[in-house]
Amino acid sequence: MTIDIGAGKLLAQEPTCPRDAHGRPRVFVAGSGAYLTDPDGRRWIDFDNARGSVTLGHGDEEVAEAIARAARGAAGVGTAWSPVLDSLLGQLQEVCGGDVIGLFRTGTAALRSVACAVRDARDKPIILSSGYHGYDPMWHCDEAFSPNEHGIVEFLFDLDVLAEWLASPDQVAAVVISPDHMHLGERWYTEFTRLTREADVPVIADEVKVGLRYRGGLSTDLLDPAVWIVAKCLANGSPVAAVGGDAHLLAGLEEVSFTSYFEPTALAAATTTLRRMATGEPQRAGRAGGDRFIAHARAAFAGASVPIDLAGNGNLFQFVCADDEVQDAFHAASAAEGLLFFEGDNQTPSQAFTAEVAEDACGRIGRVAEALAGRFTDRELTEDSWYAGAWGAMDGLADRPRTREQTNEIVARLWED
Amino acid sequence: MTIDIGAGKLLAQEPTCPRDAHGRPRVFVAGSGAYLTDPDGRRWIDFDNARGSVTLGHGDEEVAEAIARAARGAAGVGTAWSPVLDSLLGQLQEVCGGDVIGLFRTGTAALRSVACAVRDARDKPIILSSGYHGYDPMWHCDEAFSPNEHGIVEFLFDLDVLAEWLASPDQVAAVVISPDHMHLGERWYTEFTRLTREADVPVIADEVKVGLRYRGGLSTDLLDPAVWIVAKCLANGSPVAAVGGDAHLLAGLEEVSFTSYFEPTALAAATTTLRRMATGEPQRAGRAGGDRFIAHARAAFAGASVPIDLAGNGNLFQFVCADDEVQDAFHAASAAEGLLFFEGDNQTPSQAFTAEVAEDACGRIGRVAEALAGRFTDRELTEDSWYAGAWGAMDGLADRPRTREQTNEIVARLWED
Repeated sequence: MTIDIGAGKLLAQEPTCPRDAHGRPRVFVAGSGAYLTDPDGRRWIDFDNARGSVTLGHGDEEVAEAIARAARGAAGVGTAWSPVLDSLLGQLQEVCGGDVIGLFRTGTAALRSVACAVRDARDKPIILSSGYHGYDPMWHCDEAFSPNEHGIVEFLFDLDVLAEWLASPDQVAAVVISPDHMHLGERWYTEFTRLTREADVPVIADEVKVGLRYRGGLSTDLLDPAVWIVAKCLANGSPVAAVGGDAHLLAGLEEVSFTSYFEPTALAAATTTLRRMATGEPQRAGRAGGDRFIAHARAAFAGASVPIDLAGNGNLFQFVCADDEVQDAFHAASAAEGLLFFEGDNQTPSQAFTAEVAEDACGRIGRVAEALAGRFTDRELTEDSWYAGAWGAMDGLADRPRTREQTNEIVARLWED
Repeated sequence: MTIDIGAGKLLAQEPTCPRDAHGRPRVFVAGSGAYLTDPDGRRWIDFDNARGSVTLGHGDEEVAEAIARAARGAAGVGTAWSPVLDSLLGQLQEVCGGDVIGLFRTGTAALRSVACAVRDARDKPIILSSGYHGYDPMWHCDEAFSPNEHGIVEFLFDLDVLAEWLASPDQVAAVVISPDHMHLGERWYTEFTRLTREADVPVIADEVKVGLRYRGGLSTDLLDPAVWIVAKCLANGSPVAAVGGDAHLLAGLEEVSFTSYFEPTALAAATTTLRRMATGEPQRAGRAGGDRFIAHARAAFAGASVPIDLAGNGNLFQFVCADDEVQDAFHAASAAEGLLFFEGDNQTPSQAFTAEVAEDACGRIGRVAEALAGRFTDRELTEDSWYAGAWGAMDGLADRPRTREQTNEIVARLWED
């Protein structure tokens, strides 16, 4: 039975996924490596990869075999503890550190639980936050820089605002950020770490997106988090999120228990994937192909006078368009060439993005540039383009010189859209 | 690499699972049908079944094949919408009803999201609640019958308390209950439905445990919920929870989106399992074997003068022991016979609990009764035993005649333990 509900009429939710210009979800029937097949048999190159969670490629043989074996009951059971769980916990500690580890099914659940646990342990009401930490209502802020009803202060990666709050740290339980390496540089992390250390406020690194993305560990040495969360690069798309860190801060996780805790296929996907991600090899492979694609795309856009640039590197990058109109035209042209991008957000090539795939992708993006040539010669990339790009990918402000007044103006403009 | 962390030293959480008398998790390496294999090669009969979520048996061939196929990338991809998702949404609506459907990874996430959505839609602060709705801190109540800081009132299935709150329903957004069919009877549901209808307050049926447990649909016709949640019987242990109901009440789910939303193995497990659960056949099979086991166990305990009775039927039942000492001795004797029970909670035979397995299980429980014979002839099952049993399995009070004063005494006693 297949009911055509493609437009999501029956669905109460609007899950993030590739959609056409009318908001209708794009449908795919199969995937292999870096390619997806749509119902018409057309092959697309996938840069979305389930919002960056398919890091080894679709249908990866080794992961598929591990999952199949677990599904047959040969690698532990959902009822109870298994050697696979011991293995996963050990791997996580080795790769990311921490006194204790916790497991969840989604980043949203992990972040909410961690935030509640740390707040309880520190017995202070405020959490300073930047970046997206999941769909839970606790994170919803109608305005920036002051506490919402749940005690969350959104500081949008603005270090001046952070410094103001940390000047009187008595009320602050923790600072939680989702590190970004496209729009924030070394200076930002150095200053961030100095401020939080001086105030003696623990840092929660929400590395759901970037943990294990760039190498076999957390994304940067410039942070010294008391608690980390990783998820997207853990299990090649299977629903596993992990938390680690200070045992005292995480004591409140004791009550966390869910029915599928020991579900063997997810554990098998995680141990198999993590073993490979820990080596750094999948990251090197994705980076090599991605870097080549970025260089080619940048040259193609420049050559055709299309006002689009790219931020980031081959592991995780973003198209920055002059304005929304350019962006819409770019996505339409890309879809026509079978390039599947995470619109307005970051692109994340998997290990399956080999030299051959990069070659194919470079050809396609070249034709996209040709299709757009001459259409937007009156536009150029501005500071606003870069701020809008950062806003779309990291839910906050790029680290660029600005006054506090300018900050407020930029936020007002971006928040409105 | 296998690290022996069996005692959970590295784990910040204490997930519910079979444990020995010292609280150490029991480890199993494999499962097939109704049987689990421990590291010594001993075969246990599983009545826990991942807290009732493995309804077709461990390693079920059809589910395993569907999962394996999805893992190879042949049944949609984690990146995008797929025909399998359309199919699952259609199946859920057909089986459980509702204008709209929502999907989650855990019952905890589903219940929190639904509660927040319904509260927003109704713009009233209080939710009256009975039963366990997940580990989220919002449900934690230090005392019964009055609101916690999140507006949750725990009424512990006491209809007098419910009636008092519903006498002035202006503040009440909804009533959420986890239906139980071991300790609550027809009279309870009839009265509950009358009270909520008269007050015009929507009912949220948290059927995470019992939905699809007894038949191919929600657990009872005596409720008329505005919103339902099902989970444990949906996907033979894979992490899928579903929500359905009134589109207006669930409008707030629009923002719910998680990375693994389209993860193909979970969708494949759910469509395959749900197709079979919708027929009612797995429920009939588990019930037949379970009923036979219950009758045999009851006779064996009576014959050996062991003060243990059973509540419920073959789909979901509970051992009710005279007191904690009897219960501990029972669980030790059961473990010695390789009977794996969900201690103090409900037992849930799967479809794999065939006549042959029932025969084996009856032999084992007979030997358990023999081992306990003569040891507890001074004890008997009392009203307190039944209240404690209900408390352990349904987080509330069994429906027995009592005054409001007695209610308070019982709650004080049980809450203390």
